[in-house]
Amino acid sequence: MSKKVAVILSGCGFLDGAEIRESVLTLLHLDAAGAEVTIFAPNKKQHHVVNHLDSNEAGEERNILEEAARIARCKVSPLTELNANDFEALFIPGGFGVAKNLCSFAFDGSGASIDETVQKVINDFYASQKAIGALCIAPALLALCLGDKGIKVTIGNDEGTAKEIEKTGAKHIECKASDCVVDTDHRIVTTPAYMYDSEKLHHINQGIEKCVRKTLEF
Amino acid sequence: MSKKVAVILSGCGFLDGAEIRESVLTLLHLDAAGAEVTIFAPNKKQHHVVNHLDSNEAGEERNILEEAARIARCKVSPLTELNANDFEALFIPGGFGVAKNLCSFAFDGSGASIDETVQKVINDFYASQKAIGALCIAPALLALCLGDKGIKVTIGNDEGTAKEIEKTGAKHIECKASDCVVDTDHRIVTTPAYMYDSEKLHHINQGIEKCVRKTLEF
Repeated sequence: MSKKVAVILSGCGFLDGAEIRESVLTLLHLDAAGAEVTIFAPNKKQHHVVNHLDSNEAGEERNILEEAARIARCKVSPLTELNANDFEALFIPGGFGVAKNLCSFAFDGSGASIDETVQKVINDFYASQKAIGALCIAPALLALCLGDKGIKVTIGNDEGTAKEIEKTGAKHIECKASDCVVDTDHRIVTTPAYMYDSEKLHHINQGIEKCVRKTLEF
Repeated sequence: MSKKVAVILSGCGFLDGAEIRESVLTLLHLDAAGAEVTIFAPNKKQHHVVNHLDSNEAGEERNILEEAARIARCKVSPLTELNANDFEALFIPGGFGVAKNLCSFAFDGSGASIDETVQKVINDFYASQKAIGALCIAPALLALCLGDKGIKVTIGNDEGTAKEIEKTGAKHIECKASDCVVDTDHRIVTTPAYMYDSEKLHHINQGIEKCVRKTLEF
């Protein structure tokens, strides 16, 4: 009954990498559901490094795979090794890392470029009719890759971001942090998480728990 | 009913800072219990930086407060601002950061030195009869500060570490990851967490949930 699941992390820290709490709670609920999880991250430089104390850019460089290894407790593989054939579902936690390192949505909105490996992975999971769960801003990445299929996603209730998402052809559905949006036709489940910046952690956890459960149900 | 709780983080990443998953799950269960949480960290250089991909020392420097801010989502205060009078309980998640940045237990065992601010904080909470919850290796730090009071703690079942802890006068009690040890006399609650390196995350989560609940009951 154990499902094989791939998780893509985009660093470690919500301003320049993967949102740490979303990443941990995704791993928690996957583990509680008995999933067999493998964590992946691109082996390349982060777009930049942000000092999370003052939110200013720091004058240094960090590698996405090495930073993701902090959340993964060393057990993380380069994204180039992710083969959709080996897994039944894919999860992408949020954080600006998704919109800065996996694609350029943070800077270019619906006109963003996408990391080639990330794009191939998402397209492969979709083409083989496997479920994809995405948190926070990660649904915008799915929209960049799959908007032309008319997928339905949520990033909460931020109008500007929702508009950019809809420019890709994807449909945006408003949703609260404690809930998720299920696109049954395309096997895509999304939850806003820390798109609600000051939301209580246990409400965000409820949304992530639902997102994980619904994604594994496909 | 909302209890004011201080949490001390020692960085961001289990090999050179705070254990990320333990930190997030501590924050989750405190939030779910309605606690009002303030996060603190020392504003000083980490002992060192470890590449979490290959576990080797990296030739760079990082600041503990800035790295803790990644888990804290920017909302973290310098440890020097922590006044025990403002809080009803204290939590210290684990990770090597506790044993490398808050004290030198990782290198010196029971002969370790302790960061002066950390020592004052722990002594102040203890002296004012407030509850302290500690995870993973953090009970060793409590033993360094309060061993002479005969406190009872657990770090799981690692014999070498338990022996060093008992040299301080503290008593070590074996415990599994999904449980915690409650020292009612001294209002100290401890759980092994990732001292069991390959333990399942949802078992560790059970231990942390119990540790948080029992600590808040004092």
